[in-house]
Amino acid sequence: METIKTLLNHKTIRNYKTDPIDDHILDEILEAGFRASTTGNMQVYSVIVTKDEQRRKELCKLHFGQQMVEQAPVTLTFCADFNRFNKWCRQRDADPGYDNFLSFFTAAIDALLVAQNVCVAAEAHGLGICYLGPTTYQADKLIDFFDLPEGVVPVTTVVIGYPNEDPEQVDRLPAEGVVHQEKYKDYSREDIDRIYAHKENLPLTARLIEENQLENLAQIFTFKRYTKKDNVHFSKVFLDAIEDQGFMNNEE
Amino acid sequence: METIKTLLNHKTIRNYKTDPIDDHILDEILEAGFRASTTGNMQVYSVIVTKDEQRRKELCKLHFGQQMVEQAPVTLTFCADFNRFNKWCRQRDADPGYDNFLSFFTAAIDALLVAQNVCVAAEAHGLGICYLGPTTYQADKLIDFFDLPEGVVPVTTVVIGYPNEDPEQVDRLPAEGVVHQEKYKDYSREDIDRIYAHKENLPLTARLIEENQLENLAQIFTFKRYTKKDNVHFSKVFLDAIEDQGFMNNEE
Repeated sequence: METIKTLLNHKTIRNYKTDPIDDHILDEILEAGFRASTTGNMQVYSVIVTKDEQRRKELCKLHFGQQMVEQAPVTLTFCADFNRFNKWCRQRDADPGYDNFLSFFTAAIDALLVAQNVCVAAEAHGLGICYLGPTTYQADKLIDFFDLPEGVVPVTTVVIGYPNEDPEQVDRLPAEGVVHQEKYKDYSREDIDRIYAHKENLPLTARLIEENQLENLAQIFTFKRYTKKDNVHFSKVFLDAIEDQGFMNNEE
Repeated sequence: METIKTLLNHKTIRNYKTDPIDDHILDEILEAGFRASTTGNMQVYSVIVTKDEQRRKELCKLHFGQQMVEQAPVTLTFCADFNRFNKWCRQRDADPGYDNFLSFFTAAIDALLVAQNVCVAAEAHGLGICYLGPTTYQADKLIDFFDLPEGVVPVTTVVIGYPNEDPEQVDRLPAEGVVHQEKYKDYSREDIDRIYAHKENLPLTARLIEENQLENLAQIFTFKRYTKKDNVHFSKVFLDAIEDQGFMNNEE
């Protein structure tokens, strides 16, 4: 089954050819994206297409210099967007009550489901994709960069282009490690050891530990990749952005 | 291209046969889900499978009585989950700093991308799906229902089963209404009228306006479907759940 194969074969691509993507292919990919489920068929999201070379260079910097933003022909920024819906309501004598956290999260879900559909559609076309984590960390700067009005918050970014590499597929935890039957079965020490054993025994892990001069893979995450200090800092940035964009009026 | 067709043909199914889903099919669907991109390959999500008939009845009530939860053989609840990762870190003398809002949102993104992959895989198998909005509104009750420990928050739910209906595909806004080139182009009054014209002129819309005795579709959203009062109430419920589950320690 082609669809299942597409999903099972997913690999994140970090090295792209500079070949452009035909407009009709990009349009079809986006169209497939917009078919994703959306709360109440409100479609409270927007997608911003970055193709311009100079803008890609600037956007690359905002994503902490991840080169694929400059290299690949297209970057898509997916935003939670109640601005359009609010404007529609106001133009129809309907008073929108969507300036709160629930509405932000509803719109974020909408945007993320579209993003994933877009990625699947892109891969079906032989394109490669890469999600960019810094979207939420740099929300304030991206709001400026894209001129996002009140009611619009960027939630994720996807780079799309033709792959210039064919990496090995990365590991995943065994399904038993992430699936629970009926109720959440909390993890014993033995469960944790078993679930993470494969990942911890990979040659890649050994190399990373060596390079980082740490004791184990978990320490690479907590000391290097995703530190408490950064997380706390970026939590504030992101929450402030959500509030500044008008999504934190949670009182009647 | 089968994958693009699968995506473009998506319809939400609200009426299901009671036929069970073979375990190997469900496993394959979940496996396809877990291939979705995940921040730093952390896989900070969990999926809870509800199959038991009695549990489905109870879960149906928590989702405001939406009958398909009781009717369909499987409901999947997707959770942002740092509990497993935190336990792993602590067992490896690594101090996890993932008790903040950024980490919650990172985990929510992970969970939502998996959910959408699962839906695409299910539809490729001829199954129908329906997302359940009440997941965030009822987060506190679902946390109890599933025994979710600290670090775990439900973010979305998907009902899966064999369709017992073949509804018309619903409308979407024209692509120009949701796509922006390079920068966000804010909407003029004329833009709003044009973008929403098709939706507003559908026979379904006329029927809804008649049934609800309101002036237009926008008022159905603001007065009936998603009211400010409900949104404010459920914003508090959801934010409290995020805090109670240990994701709001945003100070150093």
